[in-house]
Order: sequence, then C-alpha cells, then structure tokens
Amino acid sequence: MELNVYLAGEIHSSWRQDLKEAAKNRNLPLHFTGPMENHDRSDDIGEEILGTMPTSILKDEAASSINNLRTQILLQKADVVIALFGETYKQWNSAMDAATAIALQKPLILIRPEKLHHPLKELANKAQVVVETPEQAIQALSYVFEEE
Amino acid sequence: MELNVYLAGEIHSSWRQDLKEAAKNRNLPLHFTGPMENHDRSDDIGEEILGTMPTSILKDEAASSINNLRTQILLQKADVVIALFGETYKQWNSAMDAATAIALQKPLILIRPEKLHHPLKELANKAQVVVETPEQAIQALSYVFEEE
Amino acid sequence: MELNVYLAGEIHSSWRQDLKEAAKNRNLPLHFTGPMENHDRSDDIGEEILGTMPTSILKDEAASSINNLRTQILLQKADVVIALFGETYKQWNSAMDAATAIALQKPLILIRPEKLHHPLKELANKAQVVVETPEQAIQALSYVFEEE
Amino acid sequence: MELNVYLAGEIHSSWRQDLKEAAKNRNLPLHFTGPMENHDRSDDIGEEILGTMPTSILKDEAASSINNLRTQILLQKADVVIALFGETYKQWNSAMDAATAIALQKPLILIRPEKLHHPLKELANKAQVVVETPEQAIQALSYVFEEE
Amino acid sequence: MELNVYLAGEIHSSWRQDLKEAAKNRNLPLHFTGPMENHDRSDDIGEEILGTMPTSILKDEAASSINNLRTQILLQKADVVIALFGETYKQWNSAMDAATAIALQKPLILIRPEKLHHPLKELANKAQVVVETPEQAIQALSYVFEEE
Amino acid sequence: MELNVYLAGEIHSSWRQDLKEAAKNRNLPLHFTGPMENHDRSDDIGEEILGTMPTSILKDEAASSINNLRTQILLQKADVVIALFGETYKQWNSAMDAATAIALQKPLILIRPEKLHHPLKELANKAQVVVETPEQAIQALSYVFEEE
Amino acid sequence: MELNVYLAGEIHSSWRQDLKEAAKNRNLPLHFTGPMENHDRSDDIGEEILGTMPTSILKDEAASSINNLRTQILLQKADVVIALFGETYKQWNSAMDAATAIALQKPLILIRPEKLHHPLKELANKAQVVVETPEQAIQALSYVFEEE
Amino acid sequence: MELNVYLAGEIHSSWRQDLKEAAKNRNLPLHFTGPMENHDRSDDIGEEILGTMPTSILKDEAASSINNLRTQILLQKADVVIALFGETYKQWNSAMDAATAIALQKPLILIRPEKLHHPLKELANKAQVVVETPEQAIQALSYVFEEE
Repeated sequence: MELNVYLAGEIHSSWRQDLKEAAKNRNLPLHFTGPMENHDRSDDIGEEILGTMPTSILKDEAASSINNLRTQILLQKADVVIALFGETYKQWNSAMDAATAIALQKPLILIRPEKLHHPLKELANKAQVVVETPEQAIQALSYVFEEE
Repeated sequence: MELNVYLAGEIHSSWRQDLKEAAKNRNLPLHFTGPMENHDRSDDIGEEILGTMPTSILKDEAASSINNLRTQILLQKADVVIALFGETYKQWNSAMDAATAIALQKPLILIRPEKLHHPLKELANKAQVVVETPEQAIQALSYVFEEE
Repeated sequence: MELNVYLAGEIHSSWRQDLKEAAKNRNLPLHFTGPMENHDRSDDIGEEILGTMPTSILKDEAASSINNLRTQILLQKADVVIALFGETYKQWNSAMDAATAIALQKPLILIRPEKLHHPLKELANKAQVVVETPEQAIQALSYVFEEE
Repeated sequence: MELNVYLAGEIHSSWRQDLKEAAKNRNLPLHFTGPMENHDRSDDIGEEILGTMPTSILKDEAASSINNLRTQILLQKADVVIALFGETYKQWNSAMDAATAIALQKPLILIRPEKLHHPLKELANKAQVVVETPEQAIQALSYVFEEE
Repeated sequence: MELNVYLAGEIHSSWRQDLKEAAKNRNLPLHFTGPMENHDRSDDIGEEILGTMPTSILKDEAASSINNLRTQILLQKADVVIALFGETYKQWNSAMDAATAIALQKPLILIRPEKLHHPLKELANKAQVVVETPEQAIQALSYVFEEE
Repeated sequence: MELNVYLAGEIHSSWRQDLKEAAKNRNLPLHFTGPMENHDRSDDIGEEILGTMPTSILKDEAASSINNLRTQILLQKADVVIALFGETYKQWNSAMDAATAIALQKPLILIRPEKLHHPLKELANKAQVVVETPEQAIQALSYVFEEE
Repeated sequence: MELNVYLAGEIHSSWRQDLKEAAKNRNLPLHFTGPMENHDRSDDIGEEILGTMPTSILKDEAASSINNLRTQILLQKADVVIALFGETYKQWNSAMDAATAIALQKPLILIRPEKLHHPLKELANKAQVVVETPEQAIQALSYVFEEE
Repeated sequence: MELNVYLAGEIHSSWRQDLKEAAKNRNLPLHFTGPMENHDRSDDIGEEILGTMPTSILKDEAASSINNLRTQILLQKADVVIALFGETYKQWNSAMDAATAIALQKPLILIRPEKLHHPLKELANKAQVVVETPEQAIQALSYVFEEE
C-alpha cells in the first residue's frame, strides 16, 4: 500500500527536500507531489503557454488557472496532505489547499512554527495533526505503517 | 426564495454593515450570517465556556474549536459565500472559509482591493465572481433576482 | 409541496411565458427561475458591475462570471430543470445547464422541435422526459401532483 | 502516476492525433480515451447491435444509448477532460460532456478558436484552463508533472 | 417537524388509504406521496402527453419516462420510504424504488406477507424495518415522534 | 434560522431536560430531537409492533431496527449533534450516533466528565467541541447566534 | 484499462458463461464478478457459517446478510453492471442490484426478452442500454474500446 | 481482485493473528490493516512525536490525533471493515470506527460474543454481517470469491 502525499505550502525553503529525505531514510512507501516550486515559473506559466498578457492582473489570472489545474489534479489523487506555513508571505493559496483537503475529507498534517499558532488557530483546529517540523510529519506518516 | 449568505473575512472594518445596508436598500431577500465580529470575544470564547487555560496555545485551541463550530454550522446553511480580504492581517481563516465554500460547491464572491490580486490569484481564479467593493457584491446578488 | 423549476435555454422567444401561463391555468404549485432573459443585459452585466473592459473577451468573461453565479445558485435550489432548444443559436450554455442538472441527479425535461433530434440525441437520451412544447412539459409536471 | 485524459469534442478533424503526438514527444504519462471518432459508426452503432429501426429518431435513440454508455464509463475513469470546439456543427454532446466533467469536479481544459469566445463564454468561465490549440493543452498537462 | 413519506409498491389494493387513515388517527405530521395509483392512467400517460405511439413498446417507454419523472422528484423529497409487496404481479418497479431509497441512504420500511420472505430476503435484509401490515408501518413512524 | 439538534447518548439521567431548559432560558431557536428516553419502551418497541419474539436476541434485533429507524430519520434532519457519555453503561449506540454525525459532516459537541477522557480520546479528537456540562454545550450553541 | 463488470440477475441458466465466452472471443479486457450461482449454496450460506437456524425465515435472514455482503463489495468495485431478467422467478434481488447500480451512477445494461418489456418498463427507462441477448451486451461493451 | 480489510476493535487479544492465519490458510487475496496493536505505543505516540505533555489529557489529545490520522487514512482505503468487541474495556473508538465504516457505505462484519448482543444491538443491526469468531468472518469474506 503506497500513499500519495501532496505537499502544500511555502516554496521558498528546502522543507520538501528535508521531508522527502526523511521519508527515504525510513523506506516509507510514500509518493510525493506538490506545486511548482520554481516561483518565477509559477508566476510566468500563464504567459509561457498563452502568450504575453497586457496587464499584470491578466498575467496572474492566466498563471493561476494553470497552477490550479495542477493542484486540482494532484489533490484529487492525494491520500493525505501536508501543509507548511512559514513566517513570511501571505500564503493564501496554501491555506486554500489545506482547507480544500479538509473539505474533501483528506487528512491534513499542518507544519508551522509555534509562534504562528494564533493566526493559524482555526486551521490548526481542523487539521488532523499539527507539528513543527517536516521530520515530525514524516514520523506521523511512518506510524501509519508500523506494526508495533 | 430567500438566500442565506455567509460573510467570511476581515472583522476589523464595517464592510458587513455597508453590505447589509446595500442589500436593505434594494429590498433583497438575503439573510446574512458570519463569524463573531467582536475580535476579543472571538479570542476569549474558549475560556469563557471552558474556563481559564494554562497557556495561550491552549486558549487558542479552545477558542478555535468554538469559532469553527459556528462557521461549520453557518456555512452548511449558506447558499452563497462572500469573502472580503483586507490589506492587514494574515486572514488564514478567511482563506479557509472561502476554500471550504468552493469545495462544498457553494459559489464564492471574493471582495479584495486590486493590489492584493497577486497573493490572492489562485483563490480569485476559483471564486465565481471577483469584485472590489461590498456594493459590487450586492449588485451581483441582486442580479440573481432581477428579471430584465 | 412546492417544486422549484429552473427554465434553461433559449431567451429569444416567449416560451417561458407560455409555460408559466400553462402552469398557472392548472394551479400548479411551481416556482420558476431561470437566466436573465434580457439578452443585452446578460451580455453587459459584467461591465455594469465591474466597469468598462478593454476587450470584448474580457467583457464576456466578466459577464459570464455573473451569469454563472446566477445559474449556480438557482440550479442548486431547483427540484427539476426544463431546457428548451430552438433552431437558431449555438446554445452551448443551455447544453451546459442541462448536463449539469443531470450530473447533479436533478431530472431534466427537454423541449425541442423534432427536427433537432439528431444533434441533440445524446442529451435527449440522458433527459428524463423529451417533449416538443412547453404545454407538454407542464402536463408532465402536472402529472407529478395528480392522484387519479 | 499516470493520468487518464478524456478527449471530448469535435470528431471531424485530426486534433486528437496532434494532441497525442504532442504528448508522446514529451514522454508524458497520459492515457487518452474519447468518443468513437468514426462518425458513421457512431450514428449506426444502435442498429449495428439492436437491428434496423423503423424511424430515424429511433435509430438515433438506439445509437445515443450506446454512445452515452461509452462516454459515461470513460468519463468516470478520467482524471481530467479536454474538450475542443470547432466552428461548424452544434456540438451539444461536446458541451454536455464538458459540463458533466465540471459537475463531477474533474478539471476541464477547453480548446477553442478565439472567435468562438462569445457563445462559449459561460463554459469557458467554468473551465479550469482555456487555450486555442491542442499543443497548448498538452503544455498545461506537462506542467502538472514538471519540477522546475 | 414534518416528514415526507413516499409510498412505493402495489397499486391494486387500498393499502395506501389504510395507511393514511392510520396516520390521521394518530395525528402524525406525515405528508404522503407515491406513484399514480390509477393503473390505466399510469400505462397511458406517455401517449396522453406525447400522442399515440406506433408500438406497445414505444407506448411503454413514453409512459415509463413520465412515471420515472414523478418518482425521481418525489423520492428526492422523501425522508423515509415505505414499500409494500403483494403476492401478485412482478413489481419490479417497486423493488427499484425500494433499492433506490436505500442507495440514497433514506430508510426503507418494507411491508410484505410473511410468505414472501424468501424471494424478498435480500431486500428485507437491506430494509431498516420489515413489517406485515400498514398499521405496523405507521406504528414504527409514530415511534419516531413519541417521547415516552 | 432555527437549528435542529440531535441529543445522542445516555438516557438514564435528566441531562436532556437540563439542556433544553438552558436553551429556553436563553430563548435560543433550537429544536431538539433524540432517542426514546423510556429505556423499557426502547427495549420493547420491537415486540410492541411485531409481536412476541422467541428469543431475547430476536427481541433485541426487532427493537434495534425500530430504534435505528428513529435515529436515522432524526440524524439526517439534524444540523448539529450533542452526545453525552456517562460513567456507567457501555453506550456503544451513543458512540455510533456520534461517529455517524462526524462522518456525515455534522458537527459534534461531546459532553463527558473529565475522567472519561482516556477511553473517549479518539472520539473527543474528532468532536468539534468537548465540554463537561449541558450548560456549556448550550453556551457553545448560543455563541453561533450571538453578534457581539 | 480494464473494466470490472458485475453480472446481476438470474442464476438458473448459463447466460453468464455465454457472455464470458463472447468477451473472451473478442479479447476484451473485462473482469467479471457476480452473485453465487449455486442456488442451494446461496440459500444455505447463512447456516453454513452461523449454524442451523430455528426457522426458515431466520435461515433466510442469515443467508441474505452474507449474500448482500458479497454484492455490496463487488458492486462497489464495478465500473458497469449487466442485469439479465428471465421469464420465471420474482428476481427482486436482481431488480435491487440493478437499481442500486443506477443510484450509484454506474451504467446499467439490461438484458431481457422483449415480452418482459411491460413489467420492466420503468427499469428499462433508467438503464443506459437495453438488449435481448448476452452477445449484444458484449457488443456494447466492446464498442467502448473500439477506435473506428 | 484484492480486497483491503480494516480490522477495528480490541487490541488486547490475538484475534487479528487468528484471522490473518485463517485467511492465509484459504489463500484469500486479502490485505489487512488496522490500528497500532501495541497499547503503550498507541498511548505514547503523541509524546513520542511532539514531546512531553504537561497533563495526561494533553498527552491523550496528542496521541489520539496521530491514532486518528492512521485510522482515517486506512479506513478510506478499506473495501470492508471487520470490528471485534470483547467483554472488557469501553472500546468507544472501536464503535466509532465501525460506525464510520457504515456511514461511508463500507460493509461492516461485526464479531462479538453472543452475550454482548444487548448493548451492541443497534450496531449489530447496522452491520452487514454479525458473527462470533474470526474464523466465521473469514468464511464470509471467502464466500465473496467463491464460484460454487
């Protein structure tokens, strides 16, 4: 039994690499997906496919339609979603992905520094598990497969 | 035919009043619900019911469980959701409510200043309608009832 | 027991009036909804709310987001959908509304001139009832309430 | 991770071949399905299985029941749907397939010449991505798998 | 709180009258619906609306599409379904209505003479309650409202 | 806006009366339902309707089918479920009702003495709110309606 | 792409063998499941597992619970359901399986002799395809895979 | 066709081993999952991942969030659920898992000693099959695959 894990959230640090490595070290049967991590490409993908747009809003709309295509397809395939919130950026699309997972009855593991607890309290309350590090998230998933 | 409208988002300005007034001026059959708008009470409601908590995180958890009870009940009753994002605050619970509405196939009207378009672009792309003012949101709902 | 009936389809003839009259003559407890029937307003509603758009495609996108808001809200409230196809126009939004009703497990009554049967054959096969006139559609709904 | 892609729409041009080739050139793990592309066979399949029908309407009904069987089975298996609209034909079954995909929460990529935007505006608004060529549709799907 | 009760099954005896009277005697807040009980009208309704059909099979198809419209609308409105099977007739549409109720997660009360238990055993096993008389079915529904 | 509240759990104390009174004191628009509180009647209802059973297991099966009919109908109507666990009895049907509410995405308010936390910990984790007294449960529901 | 096909209906003739052979002759990627075809075993399975029952009704109840376990598991796995009705027997469980498939949005292929059309007319109207022989049912499924 | 079977219930006896062995002896294509069977680890898993908690209630909350993550993931993957109730312990999480399976329309096989029938009667009534031993549960699953 392999699990599909969607990694929502911040794309400006190496947390996904840390997390994948932690999974690999434990030989866990996890298959990871997530958003485009190259921020520039994620911003430009609309124009890359549809051509130059006359305004930055239209550029954003074109990009977001392709980014949402990616997210919708991969989220539907996911058995569990992990979302990491950092201290910078608004990360409203991360909150959107996390809430969508919950509404689709897919369990959410939330990773956040303790100091973000207050603004994230409603999302934390809906998450199935709340941790502070990618390593802890992988420990939780490892437990799903352990027998003793 | 009356519609239930859940007003998600920022609780620090008077936008809900503006919006309700706009609806009243047009005699629209809309029934509005939303989160607790008294910010302190929203933060304290857990302790109000369950007693003093030993840490601020536990206070937050107690409060968020009651706030989410309110949101879940009222969101289930809603026919349409309006979410307003302002320029201050992280507003992750607003993003959560908006995304939950979409996942439950309830149409979302997003109100945001144009300058927030970039960080909100994925949510805007999922919203059914994107406007900049409460008055415009009410115009859109008014159109649902108009015959010519 | 009152039924909500969404009237999808062509907005260039008076079929909705004929149909409502037929329902009234029989004193049927039916509440009708449908799209904006004023074609110009339906095309202009986006600019009416959001202001003038730089291109006709953007004008269309703005309008369609408001028209779809209306349809989504009213279709969710409907117990049954009636869709009429005429011989002119492409009517792809009518086909979209009809198919959405079916996918949401709401029964569809399709009204079409017999000569349109070939291009409509797949939709006709999915409809619960296929008739040629609004009067026949009302006869079918009347039967739902009759006791002998 | 392989994706099932249902190719709805026009069966009179070679667009499906172009699209499959574009996918093959990029080595994408896509499995394509779609309607019967031989138009005559699609019209005759009812009589082929059930025998000659007394009228052309009954011939159409027999054929559409088999065509819809095919579509229903393949659409249920699809992770994403691509629909192409051309300038000729009524294509109401294409609109039906596209709308069904949306209602089933499967993302839709709409391919259409820009000049069809007005009659397709409501469907375009519901689509996750709107492009003009099969190559662009494949670029969008390719992006789902890309890592940088 | 009023309950909608759909009365599926045999239309050749007066069981629905007995049942409605039993409900009335107890002043239960039940609203009853069901199929057309006039057998001839139920067989002829297709031709009544659509005109004379060339074959008896086509007459049956026309009639069944209208009868199923009625059932689908009323079953969607029902909170609970009661189905009575008698010893004559094949009653496959009664079995269809009963099974549809179960699949839609609406509780089924099955009324049948004990001697029909063997052929009905799989349906009886899926029913929430199995009784032998309309009076017993009403006793079960009465219990839903009783406080001691 | 009135809410339907199903009161699952222990039927041997007067907690439902306390809770209803607390709601009445606050003039809350709540409509309460729940299981049969007369324990003997709840055990005997199968035989009351279906006649004497040859064994106590068959008596139990007959009774449970009628009790579950009541629960299924009332739970479907509920907007929110309150479940109280006491220190005596196994209360497996209370746990069943509580878990069913959660799986149907209806929010659960769990009332339990603190000393039962350990055996109830998985259910408590799934509940939206956990309190110790009926008064606290009503405070939480009151908050849903409060404006400041 | 392999399809799971559940073969509901009569277990007293060799139609399932004919149908499987027809599929094999065409090399179709179909995996067939269905009910226990040994009628005696199907009647006795409850007692086989649970021991002798005191009455024939209890024997039937025990057997039907195991038969329904089988059907529920296999029907959930099915992509399409084929149901055959013969001229003997009441076949209410076949009607139940067929209706369950439809309610779960799985397409139904109905096989029946033309002379059964009248009593099966409501079920035939809900089926996606109606044929008279197993060979025709396989032709319809073969068409799902054909490319020209 | 392999089936995923979730084994809910008591973790203090060797019933899961007995059951897996019975399945192995019959070469059944069953893949078993279940909760953590090491009771201490199940109680401590929250602290193991998140660190020492200040109170036993918080320790329980941390542990239950991880245990529920495991259950939610594995229950979603399950085709059928087996739940065993023993005579000791409150087993409210077992009742929760069993009821969740039923609400998700996954068939439940309940294993319990006959003497527990009374307190389990409502759950037994909702279960698809009720047996007394693991061997009987495997016999029931074996029957799903048998052909004569």
